[in-house]
Amino acid sequence: MKVEIKNRRFLLDGKEDFLVSGEFHYFRVPAADWEKRMTLFKEMGGNCIATYVPWCVHEMTEGDIVFGDEPQRDLAAFLELCKKFDLPVIVRPGPYCYSELDGSGVPKWVNEKYPEVLARRINGEAFGSVSYMHPLFFEKAEKYLKAFAKVVRPYLDCNGGPVFSVQLDNEITGTHVWAGTLDYNPQTWGFGKEDGEYAKYLISRYGAIENVNRAYNTSWKSFSEAYPLQRDAKNVYACRSGKDMFDFYLDMCGRYLEKIADCLYGEGVKTLFCHNSGNWNMTGYFEKMLPRFEKYGGLFLGCDHYYNLGQNFENNNPTPYYAMDILRSNDQLLSLGMPQTTLELPGGSLSAFPPILAEDVEACYMINTAMGMKGLNYYIYTGGPNYKNTGNSGDIYDFNALVRADGSINRTYYAAKRFGEFLHSHKFLQSAERHVTVRIACDQEYYRSSQYCYESDNSQADAKTFMKKGVLYSLLASEYAPGLFDIAHGVPDTDMPLVLCGSDSLSQSSQENIVSFVKNGGKLLVFRALPTLDENYAPCAVLNDFIGIKTEKYTPSSPAECKGMDERVYMLDIKYAVCPENGDEILVTAKKPVAIRRKIGKGEVIFCGFDYVLSQFSQVDMLRKLISSLGAKAAVYHSNPHVFTSLLESKSGEKTLFLMNLYSSPQTTDFTFDGKTFSSVPLAAMEVKTYDF
Amino acid sequence: MKVEIKNRRFLLDGKEDFLVSGEFHYFRVPAADWEKRMTLFKEMGGNCIATYVPWCVHEMTEGDIVFGDEPQRDLAAFLELCKKFDLPVIVRPGPYCYSELDGSGVPKWVNEKYPEVLARRINGEAFGSVSYMHPLFFEKAEKYLKAFAKVVRPYLDCNGGPVFSVQLDNEITGTHVWAGTLDYNPQTWGFGKEDGEYAKYLISRYGAIENVNRAYNTSWKSFSEAYPLQRDAKNVYACRSGKDMFDFYLDMCGRYLEKIADCLYGEGVKTLFCHNSGNWNMTGYFEKMLPRFEKYGGLFLGCDHYYNLGQNFENNNPTPYYAMDILRSNDQLLSLGMPQTTLELPGGSLSAFPPILAEDVEACYMINTAMGMKGLNYYIYTGGPNYKNTGNSGDIYDFNALVRADGSINRTYYAAKRFGEFLHSHKFLQSAERHVTVRIACDQEYYRSSQYCYESDNSQADAKTFMKKGVLYSLLASEYAPGLFDIAHGVPDTDMPLVLCGSDSLSQSSQENIVSFVKNGGKLLVFRALPTLDENYAPCAVLNDFIGIKTEKYTPSSPAECKGMDERVYMLDIKYAVCPENGDEILVTAKKPVAIRRKIGKGEVIFCGFDYVLSQFSQVDMLRKLISSLGAKAAVYHSNPHVFTSLLESKSGEKTLFLMNLYSSPQTTDFTFDGKTFSSVPLAAMEVKTYDF
Repeated sequence: MKVEIKNRRFLLDGKEDFLVSGEFHYFRVPAADWEKRMTLFKEMGGNCIATYVPWCVHEMTEGDIVFGDEPQRDLAAFLELCKKFDLPVIVRPGPYCYSELDGSGVPKWVNEKYPEVLARRINGEAFGSVSYMHPLFFEKAEKYLKAFAKVVRPYLDCNGGPVFSVQLDNEITGTHVWAGTLDYNPQTWGFGKEDGEYAKYLISRYGAIENVNRAYNTSWKSFSEAYPLQRDAKNVYACRSGKDMFDFYLDMCGRYLEKIADCLYGEGVKTLFCHNSGNWNMTGYFEKMLPRFEKYGGLFLGCDHYYNLGQNFENNNPTPYYAMDILRSNDQLLSLGMPQTTLELPGGSLSAFPPILAEDVEACYMINTAMGMKGLNYYIYTGGPNYKNTGNSGDIYDFNALVRADGSINRTYYAAKRFGEFLHSHKFLQSAERHVTVRIACDQEYYRSSQYCYESDNSQADAKTFMKKGVLYSLLASEYAPGLFDIAHGVPDTDMPLVLCGSDSLSQSSQENIVSFVKNGGKLLVFRALPTLDENYAPCAVLNDFIGIKTEKYTPSSPAECKGMDERVYMLDIKYAVCPENGDEILVTAKKPVAIRRKIGKGEVIFCGFDYVLSQFSQVDMLRKLISSLGAKAAVYHSNPHVFTSLLESKSGEKTLFLMNLYSSPQTTDFTFDGKTFSSVPLAAMEVKTYDF
Repeated sequence: MKVEIKNRRFLLDGKEDFLVSGEFHYFRVPAADWEKRMTLFKEMGGNCIATYVPWCVHEMTEGDIVFGDEPQRDLAAFLELCKKFDLPVIVRPGPYCYSELDGSGVPKWVNEKYPEVLARRINGEAFGSVSYMHPLFFEKAEKYLKAFAKVVRPYLDCNGGPVFSVQLDNEITGTHVWAGTLDYNPQTWGFGKEDGEYAKYLISRYGAIENVNRAYNTSWKSFSEAYPLQRDAKNVYACRSGKDMFDFYLDMCGRYLEKIADCLYGEGVKTLFCHNSGNWNMTGYFEKMLPRFEKYGGLFLGCDHYYNLGQNFENNNPTPYYAMDILRSNDQLLSLGMPQTTLELPGGSLSAFPPILAEDVEACYMINTAMGMKGLNYYIYTGGPNYKNTGNSGDIYDFNALVRADGSINRTYYAAKRFGEFLHSHKFLQSAERHVTVRIACDQEYYRSSQYCYESDNSQADAKTFMKKGVLYSLLASEYAPGLFDIAHGVPDTDMPLVLCGSDSLSQSSQENIVSFVKNGGKLLVFRALPTLDENYAPCAVLNDFIGIKTEKYTPSSPAECKGMDERVYMLDIKYAVCPENGDEILVTAKKPVAIRRKIGKGEVIFCGFDYVLSQFSQVDMLRKLISSLGAKAAVYHSNPHVFTSLLESKSGEKTLFLMNLYSSPQTTDFTFDGKTFSSVPLAAMEVKTYDF
C-alpha cells in the first residue's frame, strides 16, 4: 500500500483515508508472535506500523553495530513481514527514542566514555542528557545512522518497500526541557568565542555588541564576552537574553534535525522525513525549523497526545481540558500546513496507576477525531520483553497496551477496534475540516514564554490561561464553534469575528496583521489588555495606535452589567476601566465602563478590560452577547453547556456532528442542527456520540 | 429531636444514627419556600439543618443590628419552623462565614471605617482580610455576637429549642493562608514591644533572647527587637522562625475562637461549640487549640470535604486521590477523638464549570461513608437570592445545589436521597470503625510544614507525598487495609505493623513513641530516611540511635531485586544504600543492599532507603512482600487493584464492605471476603457497591 500526503490529507493507494498506525517494536515483541499480532492489528482497522530502531539495542558496544544477528535485532526481517502484510511503515531510528529505554535510546557507552558530550545546565552541571549538536556526539550518532540507512534502504517506498517515512530523532528538546533547562554545553555553543555558534547567532540578530548591551543591560566589550543571563532574574533584560538563548537553541535543534536528514539522505534514504512534537506546548517550537526541510519536500510534523502517563498528570481521564488542548494542538498543526496527525495516541500508559481504561481511550480517540485528526499512531499497539535489560521501567515493556506484552488481548483493544470501524465508515472525514464560526488569535509566544519569562509575572502565560479556561471553554459551552488561529500567519478573511486574549507583548507583524483585519472590515474582540511591547519587550503599540483606546488601571469588586442582559456578571477579573470617546458604545460597566465598542472604518472593535476563569453561566451569556453583536454565526445549539460539540464537514459536503460527554457521570442534552431538533439525548460517562448529516 | 455526641458517635434521641444535616440559609431562601424545602429535605433523609447567621446581613450599617424586620433577617422565625419540623440546628454566626458573601461575612464598614484592623503580610501590606485578634475588630464583632446570642438563646437545646450546636467563626486561618500568608498585623501582635503577644510567646518558648539568637542566627538585644524572619529564605533559621510564627499564630487563632466562645457563653449560649476545618490539610492546625475548650465540654471539630469547586481543582470528580484524602482526613479526626463529620459535604459547587453531577456526588457521599464518616452537612442543600447584594459570586446563590435557588429539584437531589436511604438502612454503621490491618504513622508537621519550610527543599512535604502517592495507594491496591495514625499520640498496641514514611525531622517524643513500639515487640517498616532532627530542626536521632542503621548516599539507576520476587522492581527513587550488620537480613538490593531487616529484642525493623510514586504493579508486590513478612493480616482480597475496598465493622459485629470504582470507565473485580468469593463483580463508572456481612 502506498501512503502519500497531499493537501494535508492522507492518500492510501491514492484514496483519501485515515492513517491508522500502531507502534510495534520488533526489538521487544517475540518474533514468533509478529504475524499473529499483525493479523490482530489489521483486524482492528490498522493500516500502518511504526517502530523505533534504538541505537542502544543495535550498538551495545562502541563500534559493534549489529543488525540481523537475532530476531530482536532483525529490522530487515520485520520490514519484510510488514511488506508481506501490506503494512506501510514509519521507522524512527533516533538518535533519541525515549521509549523507556536506558539513556532514552542513546547507548550507555556514549555518556560513560565521552562525558564531554553531556548537556549542561547554565551553571555548568551535567544532567544525564546529551548535547545534540556536540560534534563528537554527532560523529558517533552518524556512524549508527549510516549503518541503519544501509539496512532500511531496500525497504524504502522509493525502492518498492513498505517504509514511507523516517522520523528524525524524537520529541526534540524534551530531553532537556523536561529536566527544566536548555542545553548550555560550552563546547557545543562555543561560549567565549567570537566565532562560536552562540556569538554568531547574536551577531546575526544584533550586529554590534552595543545593541546587545542595550537589550541586556550589560557592558560587554565584544561578542566573545556574551553569555546567556540567568533566567530566573525578574527583569526584562534577563527575559530578552532568555528568549534569545531559547531562539538560538531551537535554531540549533533544527540544524541538528537537518544534519540527521542530510546524513540519511546522503546514504540514500530518500523518503518523507517526519517528527513528533512531544506535546501540544512544544509544537510552537517547530515553525522556524520547517524551512530547513523544504529541500526534502518538507517535514511531516505530528504531535503526541497523551491524557495520562502517571499520577502527576492533571486528570485521570480525557476531560474537557484535554479536549481543549487537542483542539488547540490540531489547529496549530493545521496552521503549519500539516495533516493533523497524533503520532502518539495512547495505546496504554507507562504507568499502571491510574489505569488506562477502555471507555476512556475510546473517548480519547473520538475527541482527537472530533478535533480534526487525520492520522494516528497508537503508542504502543503492543509490547514485549526489553532487549537485554535495555529498559528503564521494567523487564517487560507492557504499557497496558492494546495487545499485552504476553500477547493477550486487552479490553482497550476492542475500544480501538470499534474506533477503527468508525474511521472505516467515515473515510469521507479525511478531507473534513472542523466547522469554525469564531477565530481565536493564537500567538506561539504564549506557549514558548515559559521557557524564558520569569514565572510569577508572565503576562503571555496569563493570556494563554484565559484563552483556555475562559474564552475557549465558554465558546465550547455555547452554540458557537471556536477555532484557534496563529495570528502570525495573518487573518485570511473577515468572514467571522476574531478574539484576541491580549498580553502585554505581541510581535509587531502580528499586531499589524490584526490592524489589517480591522481595516478590511473585520470584527475584533479584545480581552485583558492591548499589547504595548513587541515579542522582544521593546515598545510597540501598533495595534492600539490604530484602535486608540485609553484605559486606566481599575480593580473594582463590584459585579458587571452587560448591555442586553438582565443578570449581572460576577467573578470577572477587571484590570482596566475604559475611557469612552464620542461614538463609542458602552457595553459593560462595573460602576465605570469596562468594555466598549468602537467602529473603525468598515471594521469594529470591542475592548474588554478584564478576563475570567469560567465559573458562571452568566460569563458564557456575556460572551454570547458580545460575539453575536460582532456577527458570529451559531454552529450547533445544545442545551447542556457541559456537552461539547464539534462539527466536521468534508469537501463533498458530508457532515458529522460529535457530541461529547467528557465527565464521569451520564448527561443528557437537546440539540438543534440543520433544522432538526433532538431532545434529551443520553450520553453515558465519557461517551462521544456522532450524527451524520 | 435531641442530638448528642458520645464516644465519637451521634445519638439522635438517644439512638445511634447518622447526623444528616443540610445547609439552608434563611437569609437567602424565600420564606414562602421554607416549609416546602424542609419537607423535601426530610424526604431525602435529612435530620438536621445548618445555617450561617451573617454579620454583614444583620449589621449593614454600624450600630444598626437588625434581626426580625423581614423574613430574610428573621432567624427566630426560621428556628421556630425548624422546631416545628423537629429538625435540630447548627448555627454559624461567624464573625467569618465566607459563603461567597461580601467581606466573607464581615460587613464592609469594618474594613472601610477601621483599616487598622486589616490583616497584613510580613511586608506590612494589607490584603483585605481582618486581623482576628485586633482589639478593635473583636470589640465590633462582640457587639454583633451578643445581639445574636439574645436571638438564639431561647432556641438552644438547653432551653428546649432545636439549636444543639453553635459554630465559632468558620474555616479559621483560611482567610489568611488562602491569600498565601499569615497575619502580621503589628498592632495585634505587638511587634517591637517586650509585652506584645509575639514577644510573650517567644519568651515562653525560649526564656532568654540568647536562645532565640542561637535558634535564628540573629543578634537581638532584647525581645522587643524580635520580629519574624522572612519565610522564603532557604535556611534553617528562617524555618525555625517561620515555625515559631506559625505556632504563635495558631495559638492566637485558638485564643480568638476561645474569646468568641467566652463571649457567647457569657450571654447564655451554653451549648456544644463546633468548628469546621477548611480542608484536610488544615485539621492538623487544631490539635493544640482543643484544650482551650475543655471548660465547655470540648469543641466538636469537623472538616470540609469538597472534591471540586472550580477549574483550578485537581480533578473534576471524586477520584482515588480524593478517597485517600478523605481516608486521611477521617483518620485524623479519629485521632483527635471526634465523630468523623464532614461539616461541608458538597451539595453543589460555587463554580458551574466543571459541573457537579449526580453519579459523582453519590460516589463522593459513599466514599466519605466508606472512610468512616458519622455525620455530614450538605453545603448547600438549597439556596436563593443574595440579601441586598451581599453576595460576591452572583445575584442568586444557586450553587447547583440539591434543591436549586428557584426551588426546582436537581438530579443530585435523587442521588442524595438514595444515599439517605442507604444511611437509614445502615444505622448500625454509626458505631462502626474502619477495619485496619496496617498502621501508617502520620505526623502533623508533614501537613503544616508548607506554612514555614522553604518550598523547594521540604523533606516533610516529600515524605507526605510518598505517604499518599506511594505507600497508601499501594496498600489500597492490595489486600491490606491501611489506616493513618498520628504518631504523636503513641502506638496503642503491637498488633499490626507500623509504616513510617520518614522525613529528615520528627519530634523527639514521636521518635520515642516509635522506639517504645519496637521495644514492646512492634514491627516497623521505615521508608526514605530515618530522622536526624527534631521538629525544630535541632539534632535529634533518638529513633536511629535505637535502631542503629548505617546508610550512605546512593542513587543507582539499576532496578531492585526484592527477596522472594521473580520480577525486578523498577522506578524506585533510591536515596541510600544500607550497610548491613551481622544478623541483618538483606531484603532488597540494587547492586548494593537498599533494604534490610533487623531484629531488635522482640521487635523488628525493616528499613528501605528509597521511596516511589506508585506506577508499577511490581511496586505493590514488593510492599506486599515486606508488609506480610512483618505479620500484616489481609483484609479483603480483590483481583482488580484499581477497585478500592473499605470494610466497616460495627461494635455489634455487623460488617459492610465497600467496593469503589473511582474512575470514569466501568470496571470489574473478583473479591474474597469472609470465606466467600464473588467473581467478576461489575462496577459502573464512579460506582460504589456495598455488601453487608
